[in-house]
Parts: sequence; C-alpha cells; structure tokens
Amino acid sequence: MLLPPSKALLRELEALLGARGFTRDAAEMEPWLVDWRGRYQGAAAAMLLPDSAAQVQAIVARCAENRVALVPQGGNTSLVGGATPGGDEVLLLSLRRLNRIRSVSPDDNMLVAEGGAILAAVHDAASRAGRRFPLSLGAKGSATIGGLVSTNAGGTQVLRFGTMRALVLGLEAVLPDGSFYQGLSALRKDNRGYDLRQLLIGAEGTLGVVTAASLRLVPAVGSRGVAWAGLASPADALTLLRQLELRLGDGIESFELMPAHALGLVLRHVPGTRAPLTAQHPWHVLVEVTAPQSGAEASALLAAALEPALESGLVTDAALAGGEAQADALWRIRESIAEAERQEGRAVKHDISVPVSAMPAFLQTATPQVEARFEGARVVAFGHLGDGNIHFNVLPPPRPDAARWVEEQGEMVTGFVHDLVGAAGGSISAEHGIGQLKRSELVRTACPAGLRAQRAIKTALDPHGIMNPGKLIPPGD
Amino acid sequence: MLLPPSKALLRELEALLGARGFTRDAAEMEPWLVDWRGRYQGAAAAMLLPDSAAQVQAIVARCAENRVALVPQGGNTSLVGGATPGGDEVLLLSLRRLNRIRSVSPDDNMLVAEGGAILAAVHDAASRAGRRFPLSLGAKGSATIGGLVSTNAGGTQVLRFGTMRALVLGLEAVLPDGSFYQGLSALRKDNRGYDLRQLLIGAEGTLGVVTAASLRLVPAVGSRGVAWAGLASPADALTLLRQLELRLGDGIESFELMPAHALGLVLRHVPGTRAPLTAQHPWHVLVEVTAPQSGAEASALLAAALEPALESGLVTDAALAGGEAQADALWRIRESIAEAERQEGRAVKHDISVPVSAMPAFLQTATPQVEARFEGARVVAFGHLGDGNIHFNVLPPPRPDAARWVEEQGEMVTGFVHDLVGAAGGSISAEHGIGQLKRSELVRTACPAGLRAQRAIKTALDPHGIMNPGKLIPPGD
Repeated sequence: MLLPPSKALLRELEALLGARGFTRDAAEMEPWLVDWRGRYQGAAAAMLLPDSAAQVQAIVARCAENRVALVPQGGNTSLVGGATPGGDEVLLLSLRRLNRIRSVSPDDNMLVAEGGAILAAVHDAASRAGRRFPLSLGAKGSATIGGLVSTNAGGTQVLRFGTMRALVLGLEAVLPDGSFYQGLSALRKDNRGYDLRQLLIGAEGTLGVVTAASLRLVPAVGSRGVAWAGLASPADALTLLRQLELRLGDGIESFELMPAHALGLVLRHVPGTRAPLTAQHPWHVLVEVTAPQSGAEASALLAAALEPALESGLVTDAALAGGEAQADALWRIRESIAEAERQEGRAVKHDISVPVSAMPAFLQTATPQVEARFEGARVVAFGHLGDGNIHFNVLPPPRPDAARWVEEQGEMVTGFVHDLVGAAGGSISAEHGIGQLKRSELVRTACPAGLRAQRAIKTALDPHGIMNPGKLIPPGD
Repeated sequence: MLLPPSKALLRELEALLGARGFTRDAAEMEPWLVDWRGRYQGAAAAMLLPDSAAQVQAIVARCAENRVALVPQGGNTSLVGGATPGGDEVLLLSLRRLNRIRSVSPDDNMLVAEGGAILAAVHDAASRAGRRFPLSLGAKGSATIGGLVSTNAGGTQVLRFGTMRALVLGLEAVLPDGSFYQGLSALRKDNRGYDLRQLLIGAEGTLGVVTAASLRLVPAVGSRGVAWAGLASPADALTLLRQLELRLGDGIESFELMPAHALGLVLRHVPGTRAPLTAQHPWHVLVEVTAPQSGAEASALLAAALEPALESGLVTDAALAGGEAQADALWRIRESIAEAERQEGRAVKHDISVPVSAMPAFLQTATPQVEARFEGARVVAFGHLGDGNIHFNVLPPPRPDAARWVEEQGEMVTGFVHDLVGAAGGSISAEHGIGQLKRSELVRTACPAGLRAQRAIKTALDPHGIMNPGKLIPPGD
C-alpha cells in the first residue's frame, strides 16, 4: 500500500520546509539512520526537520495523500530500534527543531513543551520556576519529550511519580490523516470520552506525531537523603522497601537494586568510582528520599527509618550520603552500570517486569535456570525493584568468541527468559517499548484478544499504515 | 444494524444463566430501568445477571453474533444516564452478582475486584489488610468497580491520588466481539503497545465489559487532620492551597471549596448539621491532610501550616477538627450539599473543569455573566478546587414555576455555561462522563479531529455497535 515519495512530493516538502528543514545529504542524515545501540542500520529518502506544528501537519497531510511512510524521531535514543527509518522509500521526520518550552505555569504545576524539547531543558525550565519535572533517566541530555511520551518512558523516579503516563496532562498531535488533535489543555479532570492522550502515550509514533505536551510539575525538593545499603538478598531488599514505606509514606523516590557483580563492573570500568561500603555484600540497594521545603531534613528521616533495619540485621551495612556530592557519587555508580557493561562486552539484555512482590522469587529461580540452560552464561540483574522492573542481562561465557555466542544464542536466550517472565505474570517490555526489536516476541507472547484490538485501532486511525511502519504492531495473519 | 433479541436467544441466555441470572419480570427490573436522577426512563427486553466472567463472555459472544445490543450496568449511579437501557430491543447486563474480591496482596499494594464489587466493600477489604483504596465518593455504598472504571470516577481524593485512571493497575474485560482481554496482571511498568486498559477506562461500557480490575492500594493512614476555613474569595482559597502545598508536600488529600450559600442550604435542610465557624464568611474551604504511621500527627502539621495564613489574614477564621467525630461532621457538611440542593428544588447542574489557576477568575466572571443573562437565576458553585473541578449549578429564580423554568431554560443555560467553560480552556465533563445527557454538547464543543478518532475506534472495536448504544459516542454525519 505504501509508495516511495515522488520527486514532486520531495520538491514540495523542500519548498515548505526550507533549507534548514529538509535534507537528503548523506553525511547530515547518517547519525540519525542508525539506532543508539548500533543494532539497526536504516535508510531514508530524506530527513524533514519542521520547526512548527503547522509544518508537521502539512507534512503528514501530504504524506497521507501520497501514501508515503513517515518515521518520527526525537533524540534517537530508542533501545529497541523504534525510531530508525526502514529504507529509501520512507521519510525521516525529525522533531529536533520543534523544541520550544511554550509556557511554564507554576500556579498550575504545569509546563508545555514541544515534541522536540530535550528532557534536560525541561528540567531546567521547571527548576527556574521553583518546580521540578519528576522524570529522569540517563539519556536526559538527548531524549526528547515527544520520544518520552511515545515510549511512555520510566526512569528512576517511577516509584513515586509514575511513568510518562502519569505525568502528561495534555497532548497536541497530528493524527495519521493529517488532522490536528488539540488536547493540550491541562485539566486535572476531563471525562469526555476515550482518552486519546493515553492512547498516543506509548504508541511509539504509530498513531500520529506528538507536537507538544502539557507536563505535570511538582514542588521543588526541600531536601533529599540518599543511602546505600548492603543486603543478603532481593527478598531482604523488598522487606526493607516495605518497612521504609510504612515509615516514610511516599517520600521514597527511588529504590534501586544491584548485585555485587554490577558494582564490581562499575568499579573496574568507570574511573573515579569507589565502593560505598567497606565489606563485600551480595546485593546492594540505593535509596533516595525527599522531603518538602518545610519540615525535617530528608537525610535525618532516612537515617531514622534505616535504623531498625540495621539493628535487626536486615541491612548488613549502610552509608548515608553526607551531602549533594556524596549523593551524586552514589547515583553515579547506579547510572554507570549500563556503560560498564558495554565496556565489558556485549550481553543479551532484557527489560522485564513482574509484580513487585514476585521479583525476589523470580530472581532467585530464573537466574539459576538461565545459567543452567546456557552453560557458562551469567545473569546480571539490576534496576528498579520498587517498580518490579529489572534489567535482566545475560552475559556470555567468558571466552574469546563471546560476541559470536551473543549473536548465535541471543534469540534463544531471550525466548527462554521471556517464557519465565510470562509464567510469572510479567511483561517482556517494562519501559523500553517494542520497536523493531521485540515485535516477534510480542506476537509470540501477547494476549490474542489484546493484539487483535491493537491491530484494529492501528488500522482505524492509520488505514494506509504511513506512521512508523515496521514498528510496534506486528502485521496480522 | 441492531436487532431485537429473538425468542431463541432469550431462551438460550436463560438456560445459560439460570433463574438467578435472568429475568424479564417487570417489578424486578423496574428500579434498574430509570437513572439515579430520574431523568431517563428506560426499558429492556430482559435483565441478565451473570456471576462469572465466563458467563459475561458467553453473553457478549451470543449478542455479537445476533447483533443484539447490551447495556452494562453496575450500581446504577450514573449522573448522565450512562447505564440506562434504551428500549425493548436491548438487554440490560447487570454486573451486580459478579462482585467478588478475588485477592488482596498487601505486598504488592494491590487488590483484584470483580466488575460488580461495590466500592465500600473494596474499602473494607483493603482496610482489613492494613491498606486503603484511596478513591471515595458519596455513592460508595452502591457504585461498583466496573462503573467507576468505565466512568473514570473521581471523588474527594483526586488531588493527591488521581482519578480511577491512576488507580487501575490492570483490567480484565470482554471485548465487543466476545473475545476475552486478559490484562489483569498488576505491573507497575508495562510497555507492550497501546494501553487498552486506559482506553477502557472512561469508555462508559461502549468498548466492552470490565469483568475485573487490579486496583492500587496505598498504606493505611497514620493520622489525619481536617480543618474548615472561612475566606474572602476563591482566589484566596487557591493562594491558601499553594501555601499549604509548599509546607505539606502532597500530604494534602482534599481541598474543597464552598460558597456561603451552599453551607446555608445544608444547615437548612440537613438535620444535625451546624456551622463550623461562628461568623459569616463568603467562601469556605474544607482541607484534609494525612500523615504516615510514624512521624508527626497530621492535625499538628495542618495547624502549623495554617498559622501563617491566619496571621496574614488570608484566612479569616479556621476550625481544626479535634478528633474523628468532628472531622466526620465537617465532611458531612460537604457531602450533604447535593442532597440539600435536591431538597431545595431542581437546578441546572454542570460538572465542569478548567485549569486550576484559572478557576478563581472563571468563578468571578462566569457567575455574574450567567446571573445577568438569566434574570433571577443564582449560581451555586462548589467542589474540588484543587482539581480545577467545580459543580457549577444554576438555581432557578425563586418563584412558583421554578421547575418549569428549569425544564424550559435548562438547555440554554447549559449551552451558555459550556461556552464560558470552552473559552476558559475547560471541559464540559470533569468527572461524570457523557452518557446520554451530554452527547449533543460533546458534538457541539469537541475537537473535531478527536471526535473523528473516537468514532473510528468505536467502529473498529464494535463494528455492529452492540455495546451500550446511544451513549458517549455521538453518531457520525
């Protein structure tokens, strides 16, 4: 059904967008044609860089008439190849120039940012208004609001504030027929039918292009307390989380779990890092607690809340950050795990979730099962225990042809891990999405009624399939 | 396209559901054929009362094959006629017998309730497990989980915990083709494509039947503080809310605004109520703050936070509840306003929202505009200021034919109010939904692209239109 863009269409788009908004130059396009992890090499007939929502609307309308495919892209930080264009017959629609912060309304705890606005810029704008936007992740210097919306991004503060789904108050988007959906008004309550905003969140650009979002802000933090604790097991870590919740309410913003092996990788590969605790511990937890501007210091609250756990032996040892610099140093360890793993070599990675209470048992049983099934392989699982979301990575056997092992065994390892996840009632994609990478696994594992409904919605809103073809929704039978 | 149920189909359903699950008895059906406010008198060929999700699936599958319409109903507390069956050719599908609490998982802060479970029963089940389900509203003794999900219900704790949209972790539903959507697993993070759960929330039963939901629980409250404050204006009330937020973080659960007139109505019509403050004040606010089990008493925190506002004169006078009985008495006033209004006579009611910061200006300008346009009419606006959601009710001129005035002028009053709401970037349905009552106003005021997309989704998932016909989605051109 899709057609390559005609020369006439390309000329028309070039005239519409001007020199800064249109390019077919190979060198300019090159960095945007390969995904962040280097798994997918794509291609595109041209790269379009509109700088207004009206230009986006004109592009989509012309492409819909001409049955030409569009691949929307923000910061190109997808971990599942979700923004990599598929070939010469598609147009890459970069939102990077559509990057204004349209307004900041401290009274409404709200900010309106365009689809191409970078997360770090949103953080700064909120901060200047005495507020904060409570979603953060490693790629904050590149990731854009449109991409974060379209992938329902998570990050390290989901425990308290939820994913993008909980933080997007309104959306403005161009739908696949070129019509303009104006749903930007930031109403706390609005029950006028199906929630198109929630449908577009996590749709990975397959149902339209997000041109702007109203985002929820929260009060600036009064104080924060960060602690590192050594423990015997994931089960002990969960017990600790529940104890802290009873004492601190929802002041707990992050609760990150790491095995000794992950800490070791960071200490080995990332200069300037050092072990937070003197002794060795099988598992580690990083906790962050915040407190409002009035009231007690968060670090004092956290210290008091940790005390019973230290006394009872639930926590073997703990270190409380003595200030911002120490807190940052602890977070740097957590945030460097992915980088340290990359330096160690390739691995078979999984971004999975199970119900929070099931996570300790899952780690305890799935890890030996995987290591028994794939001899010499090693599981390194770390991440957001408080959300039931773990990055469950399988390292190849330590031998010279490790990279080939990953290449050859990867799919089988993934199938094995995903089956264990399914048996535990979990998800094969907790926060990264489906993109290109997980489509076949989605078909294999999804609820058939749900998959049929997803296909029906895609067909209803994008009958010609022009929006981000080859991503997310697998073709029907 | 729709057909009346054949005698054969009725016999088949009767055999499937048994004597307790099937009735055509007029007396048994009568209370369920008229809506809660008595605006719509409906009819149905039969009332079906399945007691399992499998029975629901069988019903929907048979009706889909036979093109017979189904109207799902829970506690029949819709305020917009959303659950009233349309006529003899439809079947009323009551979920009241599908009312089990399937499981409570304190470790996961989660509970699974069937579609017909009553809200008060869910509160009790959570409470027995040392948790709470943080959504409540006046109709809690009748309203069911399926209805609350399908209308994205709000209530008095939205300020802190959000509407049902934020509290539903997973859903199980029968889709209009009779297929079974299994999305009950309570994952905090799950990015596997379009969020069907969010699509079903607020769909008013037009996209399927919710047979069960996984609901988010929060820790039981340690202590609560409730205060009543007298103020000069809604603008002062909003300033107070922002001051309290800075001092108390998100410990504020409710922030309800009432004019002197609403308090007067309650004192006149509801026995046993008395004025919380000695002097008269033009506006009143009810604040509730909670604190976790450890830590300071909520009422002490609230008293300290109110002090600067009393000193500065922002709050003219305030009363802090001295215990649970006093707190309940203050809440009783707020919760009796609707009842007091009913006793006063009919009014033209609107459930509207605007951005929170715009609400004071909206009340200040819209009120005199309405009262000038409709001579003798009086605006009584009260509700959830912290959510930007106000019940904006227009009382008829105080004369003998007031009821006729409401009958004759109601539509014009509503159009006038909704236009003011639209100009303020607001919603004509903040929490009650569209149902039958607001369909024409939805068509008149909605974003055309959004409405087209809603119709496309409805047609894609329910091509024969068997699910709750005549509700929510207006017919196309």
